[in-house]
Amino acid sequence: MFELENNDGDARVGRLHTPHGEVTTPAFMPVATQGSVKALDSADVEAVGAEIVLGNTYHLYLRPGIELVREMGGLHSFMGWQRPILTDSGGFQGFSLEHLRKIYEGGITFKSHLDGSMHEFTPEGVVEHQKGLGVDIMMPLDVCLPAGADRDVTRAAVERTARWAERSLEAHAGDGPALFGIVQGGLMADLRQLSAERTVAMGFPGYSIGGLSVGETKSEMYEMAGLAAGMLPANAPRYLMGVGAPEDLVEGVARGVDMFDCALPTRIARNGGLFTGDGRVHVYTARFKSMEGPIDPECDCYTCARFSAAYLHHLFRAKELLAMRLGTIHNLRFIFRLMRDMRTSIVDGRFEEFRAAFHQRYVPANEERRQEHRAKRSSRH
Amino acid sequence: MFELENNDGDARVGRLHTPHGEVTTPAFMPVATQGSVKALDSADVEAVGAEIVLGNTYHLYLRPGIELVREMGGLHSFMGWQRPILTDSGGFQGFSLEHLRKIYEGGITFKSHLDGSMHEFTPEGVVEHQKGLGVDIMMPLDVCLPAGADRDVTRAAVERTARWAERSLEAHAGDGPALFGIVQGGLMADLRQLSAERTVAMGFPGYSIGGLSVGETKSEMYEMAGLAAGMLPANAPRYLMGVGAPEDLVEGVARGVDMFDCALPTRIARNGGLFTGDGRVHVYTARFKSMEGPIDPECDCYTCARFSAAYLHHLFRAKELLAMRLGTIHNLRFIFRLMRDMRTSIVDGRFEEFRAAFHQRYVPANEERRQEHRAKRSSRH
Repeated sequence: MFELENNDGDARVGRLHTPHGEVTTPAFMPVATQGSVKALDSADVEAVGAEIVLGNTYHLYLRPGIELVREMGGLHSFMGWQRPILTDSGGFQGFSLEHLRKIYEGGITFKSHLDGSMHEFTPEGVVEHQKGLGVDIMMPLDVCLPAGADRDVTRAAVERTARWAERSLEAHAGDGPALFGIVQGGLMADLRQLSAERTVAMGFPGYSIGGLSVGETKSEMYEMAGLAAGMLPANAPRYLMGVGAPEDLVEGVARGVDMFDCALPTRIARNGGLFTGDGRVHVYTARFKSMEGPIDPECDCYTCARFSAAYLHHLFRAKELLAMRLGTIHNLRFIFRLMRDMRTSIVDGRFEEFRAAFHQRYVPANEERRQEHRAKRSSRH
Repeated sequence: MFELENNDGDARVGRLHTPHGEVTTPAFMPVATQGSVKALDSADVEAVGAEIVLGNTYHLYLRPGIELVREMGGLHSFMGWQRPILTDSGGFQGFSLEHLRKIYEGGITFKSHLDGSMHEFTPEGVVEHQKGLGVDIMMPLDVCLPAGADRDVTRAAVERTARWAERSLEAHAGDGPALFGIVQGGLMADLRQLSAERTVAMGFPGYSIGGLSVGETKSEMYEMAGLAAGMLPANAPRYLMGVGAPEDLVEGVARGVDMFDCALPTRIARNGGLFTGDGRVHVYTARFKSMEGPIDPECDCYTCARFSAAYLHHLFRAKELLAMRLGTIHNLRFIFRLMRDMRTSIVDGRFEEFRAAFHQRYVPANEERRQEHRAKRSSRH
């Protein structure tokens, strides 16, 4: 399903082939948790340049239900999105819904965050659910741990994830959507190696790097993503799950990652946190109050082409719903311009130059904001 | 500024000429209180068929401030809307912000609902504010009373409104945007007559009918709107303020009204109340859960062309922001199709037939919902 087209150091450009068309990599997948990238419709998502979106099996299973989506012709038809869709497996919710689940060899039992009802996710069931949604790329159920889990717990999670991967492969039986393998192992290089070996031995068409961005530092995350990517075959796509701040995308690509998803760009946009070439800004601040130009003069998005920073500032202050759509469009377009520029620089053999220039200018959110982000992420469903 | 083109009984078709282009009447004006029709951007508002929108002087004065909007090139430029804009005067807020204002001969003193600061609106100041916004049609400051005000209070309000109209005209000095006169008088025909005579004698290019939809019954409102319209010159546009449920638009047009504004179509849309040819439906209800077709098979709006009723039902249940945009687009498009169909039927001399057929099918919201609407309206800022 994957063609590697170019590389520059560890950074790669390639192409994913799926039943709903091609995706150029490195690719970012906006998060459409409940069948909608929050505040946008599918035409908006297409217009910002997305080629693939991510849906959440756990959320769609609970509401509106897999069977309903299947009856409506599948998730593509239901949400009016004709490009590829990847779904997660519910494994992440097995980590984030700490008080609402039990994990055991058979699978994960969840207490619904909506109505308290009990539901069991098994490796086999999760493959079935994703097939019911009719997606292009599926994830197997896995065991995702918080940062700081000890060696024994991490090793057990790696081994269970591998056993679940085998069960998932068997349930999948090869037809329909692509099923990726997931490499776990926390921050322990030898356990990552063990996980990578066991997973690669099963022969998946693509590999996810899971269990990162769950509380560790950025440099720990970069290091482990790089190590894990290096353990994976060159001819398969590598997907770093749950990572997607601009600086993390650049560092992930530098380490050979091909796919990313993250709710951060869309979530911070709804709170007025917007990306610019110089870093993340907060549109509520007084400097934008009477700025006639767009929030980012280098941006070609719908929002920047049409509306002043002063208008956005006003909409956010006045709590107008439109603010969230315009902010989300801007942030996603920023991410897709970044992905495109990285691809071009890789093809041109000047990725390291691009990476240095990016970091030279781009000021990431301060550590305080990052902490807040982690806290929110852990409490996310 | 107004050409009367056709009439059929009391119902009229005409054309308003403004500095930002023409408006065909009968016209509905979506409410853009704070410089945004809630949940939509200006391209959405254009796409549903709006030719003119309404802004609220009181709200824009408080935030972002008249001077800021003026510096940004005026309200059209600020909100990215190049078609005509009409603004109200703050007179309605003198009614609705009951606990936050004092009305006296000089004007109205408001306590800001945002930060408690004190502000005075005078007839002269309000003209100045609207000129600062750069709008096409301005309203003079008026005294708006709740239904049930007694005769003496109503007469005093009519007389003060007339004196304020004179001061507004003088402040306006005729240049720039059109200034309408406002006819008050509650539900008392003789006071409406007095108000109409005094206002018409001043010679405005258009006339508003104010003080309705403030707690009276529908039939009282229809009767008084009809009486007031009949007191106004045929060659000027007649604007029934704050009225815009589908059945009210039909009855207003039947009585010779040319312009309407109302927050109801957009507000109920954000709560899942959607218009169809058969009446208002609630998209949360189970009948839409698995409906593959659009919410209204007769509708040509973006939402109905692209998304199933089942998807809308899901978005509203899941509290997705997109639900509010898609619902608002649908309801406004319903209103603009209704306005267009009324205009066509008037030109074709079959308005009465259209009116009867409309009422035959369209089931308005039940009385309970209407009460709730009134309560919200009264508490609205």
